[in-house]
Amino acid sequence: MKAIHGGDIYRNKVKLDYSVNVNPLGIPKEVENALYDAVQHCMKYPDIKAEKLKNAVGKMLGVSEEYLLFGNGASELFMAIVHGIRPNKVVIPVPSFYGYEYAAEAVCENVCYYQTKKEELFQLQEDFLEVLTEDVDLVFLTNPNNPTGNLCSREYLQRLLHHCMEKQIYVVLDECFIEFCGNEYSMLSEIERYKNLILVRAFTKILAIPGVRLGYFVCSNKNLLRKIQRQLPEWNLSAFAQEAGCACAKQGAFIEKTVHYIKEERRFLMEQLRKVGITVFPGEGDFILLYSEIPLYDMLLEKGILIRNCENFKGLGKGFYRIAVKSREDNQGLVKEIQEIIVSA
Amino acid sequence: MKAIHGGDIYRNKVKLDYSVNVNPLGIPKEVENALYDAVQHCMKYPDIKAEKLKNAVGKMLGVSEEYLLFGNGASELFMAIVHGIRPNKVVIPVPSFYGYEYAAEAVCENVCYYQTKKEELFQLQEDFLEVLTEDVDLVFLTNPNNPTGNLCSREYLQRLLHHCMEKQIYVVLDECFIEFCGNEYSMLSEIERYKNLILVRAFTKILAIPGVRLGYFVCSNKNLLRKIQRQLPEWNLSAFAQEAGCACAKQGAFIEKTVHYIKEERRFLMEQLRKVGITVFPGEGDFILLYSEIPLYDMLLEKGILIRNCENFKGLGKGFYRIAVKSREDNQGLVKEIQEIIVSA
Repeated sequence: MKAIHGGDIYRNKVKLDYSVNVNPLGIPKEVENALYDAVQHCMKYPDIKAEKLKNAVGKMLGVSEEYLLFGNGASELFMAIVHGIRPNKVVIPVPSFYGYEYAAEAVCENVCYYQTKKEELFQLQEDFLEVLTEDVDLVFLTNPNNPTGNLCSREYLQRLLHHCMEKQIYVVLDECFIEFCGNEYSMLSEIERYKNLILVRAFTKILAIPGVRLGYFVCSNKNLLRKIQRQLPEWNLSAFAQEAGCACAKQGAFIEKTVHYIKEERRFLMEQLRKVGITVFPGEGDFILLYSEIPLYDMLLEKGILIRNCENFKGLGKGFYRIAVKSREDNQGLVKEIQEIIVSA
Repeated sequence: MKAIHGGDIYRNKVKLDYSVNVNPLGIPKEVENALYDAVQHCMKYPDIKAEKLKNAVGKMLGVSEEYLLFGNGASELFMAIVHGIRPNKVVIPVPSFYGYEYAAEAVCENVCYYQTKKEELFQLQEDFLEVLTEDVDLVFLTNPNNPTGNLCSREYLQRLLHHCMEKQIYVVLDECFIEFCGNEYSMLSEIERYKNLILVRAFTKILAIPGVRLGYFVCSNKNLLRKIQRQLPEWNLSAFAQEAGCACAKQGAFIEKTVHYIKEERRFLMEQLRKVGITVFPGEGDFILLYSEIPLYDMLLEKGILIRNCENFKGLGKGFYRIAVKSREDNQGLVKEIQEIIVSA
């Protein structure tokens, strides 16, 4: 059985982890310093209301603090959302992040998976709206999607949100990779308009702090937000999450630098992989979906490189792999190893 | 409205926090070092299986790793327990920690509070078993109880667990203060026998790390454990919780030192408070329940000392306060301030 998530460096011998998509520029210095400082606050209970953090993130996003709910990673929020809504029917387009399935199936016996097509590059089409009928309570979407990297247009998302509002369907829109693409793709600007929208974000990927656990969502439907919050444990945010989060909210310049860096490295990596004969899917984000008939996962792991085997993603299958976009040096190394595998195959 | 929990140092001007009961000896050096080291692991996802931590705590307790479930603080476990069991009826003896009520009422409309009596020093009596009828699904207990400090005898707990096993009632026994009393009071040794027992612990109080968020429970009923685990988010344990937790599991000598220290300081503080005319309830743990007709909370807060106003605890009322046991110097300072208040009253 292959791992359900990437990043299983704890049970594999790994010198280079290409299976997890965090910012290759690493943790910003201010955020790292905030984490060190937080050690000195550990003897106190963290602020149960997370006021400083709320204030900082509210300012960063330009939204009311009342629209924000924080979690011990976005994964805690997905679980709290299903505990709060207790949906009778959930729709999840696939392939997508396993976490939605994990949360939905924890409470709901009717989870429907909508298969996007390889021939359509796994892009959501108009007929997806037909699946979103009145009996559906909740739909999980990601933009850009993981592991495909597909970015939905604003127009498409507007239509979908409007359709769901009419059918009284809550939409969880996970934008945890949106900063890598640029904020113009975000639906944050529509948050007032769609009371059925729960827009999930995290600092995990863009500021490279998966070990800290900090995610949040934005939702202008205060009743809904309170219902979800009521299912969260008290003190769910550690001193580290709160201190680092405040520093994260001030990393605009770092994020801008990242966007340029990723764009260039993704272009380079895609080009190089295509040159050596790998099928590369177009996409945004700090990761790339590949297809190859060569067993890349096992062969790279033998060389100490961990990539994400996408065989067990619903809606994908044997031969699909996801790799992170890392530094130029690492990326050159990866391409070289893949080239060697192909030559010797 | 007074705070529901102690420790609200974020919205009060406080120079000395007597409202939160963490070890006055502070964070052990090894644990602090582990927290600093953890900063360097934050770029990686924490181990989703927490194998190192499970191994360390399993060894510390002398129980099978399969009996352990970890949470982002015990508060996450209380919530996961009610999400996993979805009880139709819950019983909580009061006064007790608000967190049980918070968790139970998140999922259950029939939460019954059993009032212990001041005349009986809030000790649970035999008639409590009569309340635990077949229609009850879950009961929350603490030993020693918070905020009263009452310690139940092993014999009483045995009878209660046996009774609950016969009636098919799950028992959450929160032992988060048990280390301050000595392990001979713990029901850990009975964990194999009672498949209805969920024994909750945390490093929060005994090793002074409320900011880290790390709790765990022990349960020999693997089906029940899995059902509860299924309601927890993935990656619920940060790099900090996992690294610090491993160091916490090796603090036997520190804990022994703490037990002696607390015992002596509690004795001193009780004696001094009685001398100045405060009603002090007998109890164990690193805190003391007081009763006074003087508005101690407000008057101490004016002096920058935060104590726990117990007015809004179910089963207590106006005039009850809880204070932590701290260092001799702090305790002498507190008594002096209380004495001044009494003299000027």
